[in-house]
Amino acid sequence: MERLGDLVNKDITVTSVMLANNEIGTVEPIAQISEMVHEKGLYLHVDATAAAGRVPIDVQKDQIDLLTLSSNDLYGPQGAGALYIKKGVKLQTVLPGGGQERGLRSGTENIFAIAGMGEAARIAKDEMEQESKRLKEIRDKLIEEILKIDEAYLTGHPVKRLPHQASFRFSGIEGESIVLNMDMGYNIQVSTGSACSSKTLEPSHVLLALGLKHEEVHGLMVLTLGRSNTVDQVPAIAKAVQETVEKLRRLSPL
Amino acid sequence: MERLGDLVNKDITVTSVMLANNEIGTVEPIAQISEMVHEKGLYLHVDATAAAGRVPIDVQKDQIDLLTLSSNDLYGPQGAGALYIKKGVKLQTVLPGGGQERGLRSGTENIFAIAGMGEAARIAKDEMEQESKRLKEIRDKLIEEILKIDEAYLTGHPVKRLPHQASFRFSGIEGESIVLNMDMGYNIQVSTGSACSSKTLEPSHVLLALGLKHEEVHGLMVLTLGRSNTVDQVPAIAKAVQETVEKLRRLSPL
Repeated sequence: MERLGDLVNKDITVTSVMLANNEIGTVEPIAQISEMVHEKGLYLHVDATAAAGRVPIDVQKDQIDLLTLSSNDLYGPQGAGALYIKKGVKLQTVLPGGGQERGLRSGTENIFAIAGMGEAARIAKDEMEQESKRLKEIRDKLIEEILKIDEAYLTGHPVKRLPHQASFRFSGIEGESIVLNMDMGYNIQVSTGSACSSKTLEPSHVLLALGLKHEEVHGLMVLTLGRSNTVDQVPAIAKAVQETVEKLRRLSPL
Repeated sequence: MERLGDLVNKDITVTSVMLANNEIGTVEPIAQISEMVHEKGLYLHVDATAAAGRVPIDVQKDQIDLLTLSSNDLYGPQGAGALYIKKGVKLQTVLPGGGQERGLRSGTENIFAIAGMGEAARIAKDEMEQESKRLKEIRDKLIEEILKIDEAYLTGHPVKRLPHQASFRFSGIEGESIVLNMDMGYNIQVSTGSACSSKTLEPSHVLLALGLKHEEVHGLMVLTLGRSNTVDQVPAIAKAVQETVEKLRRLSPL
């Protein structure tokens, strides 16, 4: 909050924050951020992609001006997203053309994906309370087990984090190798950072921004839980992670 | 070509033309346009949305620098498009972010739609010669029948036009009323202008650009044929158009 206070000033128009970070799972204090941003007379945009359907969101209570959602992160079809615009907020398009969607996003509307996203959002909302509680239990058991591994660290906030996600870093190994070994050796799909940054081999800018050193940010592993996961899977997942980390450390020149 | 010659000058970088216009069906002389544009040292972008799968396209022979395609116009799923970029042409993105698709279009790729578009394009290419011949025959019979209606005019080029499309204008009536009456009275779906311009009630900028007067451009009706159409349908379609035009003219204050 302190750092954000220094960054938010009159030279900018919109402050954009993630409701929850997709790499480390930390849920941001949106109400506080909103207050700070609005005190300075600026607009607040919230990226709720990773958080929607997992934690409650109230654009009115938190005075959010703009909020984005992604369909596939809600178990909806790919190819759709949603932008909430508070009444009175005016936007300029970056995609002019046929004038669809009130001129904000030109191009033939993907009706099927839009309808599918709506239904996915409805289901996610209906099941959120129960499902988040269920996933949180699995997540906490996984964190407990995985932190028993030598030099394993939880990234992000220990408590204020997404219910379905846990991310760790392991010293001396590479995230990319963890992903491959977990997939090929155990048929368990994990990720290393966001889907975007995983295309490059650059270290996570999120972990660097948290103040970690270059040599500390390479062994990032993100576990994202969903509807198909159960608490019974915890021992096998934890064992797979432990064996993977040990194997990679034996092979590592570090 | 003469008018384009006046417009194309050193103050611009890219000349963008439709391979075929979606409202009037005219197929443009891309090879000639390409030569003119390149003589002036500019880039050529071709919008092949309405033409792809209906007329042959050869980006190499015609020296096209950039070409766009739409999936749903090829019977593919909505939510995908393609941009051909000639080797060496450098583009700046308007959608920065995660860096997907070589940084040109950030956002999670819609894999299903992309794969579907590829398959749709393959089928369209394989069937193009035969299907275009078949649709052209239906189109020509429809033009012949519909031009028998009083004050009915074909828009666009009489011969150099898309094989699957015919567009007409009728004096004294509105395109919007034609669309509704054809749909409700005969369950035949026609359009009035492009999908984009049909959202507004403004007269077609394409017909105005052809030099037609405001009062002449309102009664536009576009017939687009596809895989489900057969030559047997021609008499019923022509009769529906005739009855619709007559009915609307009786009701019209003009």
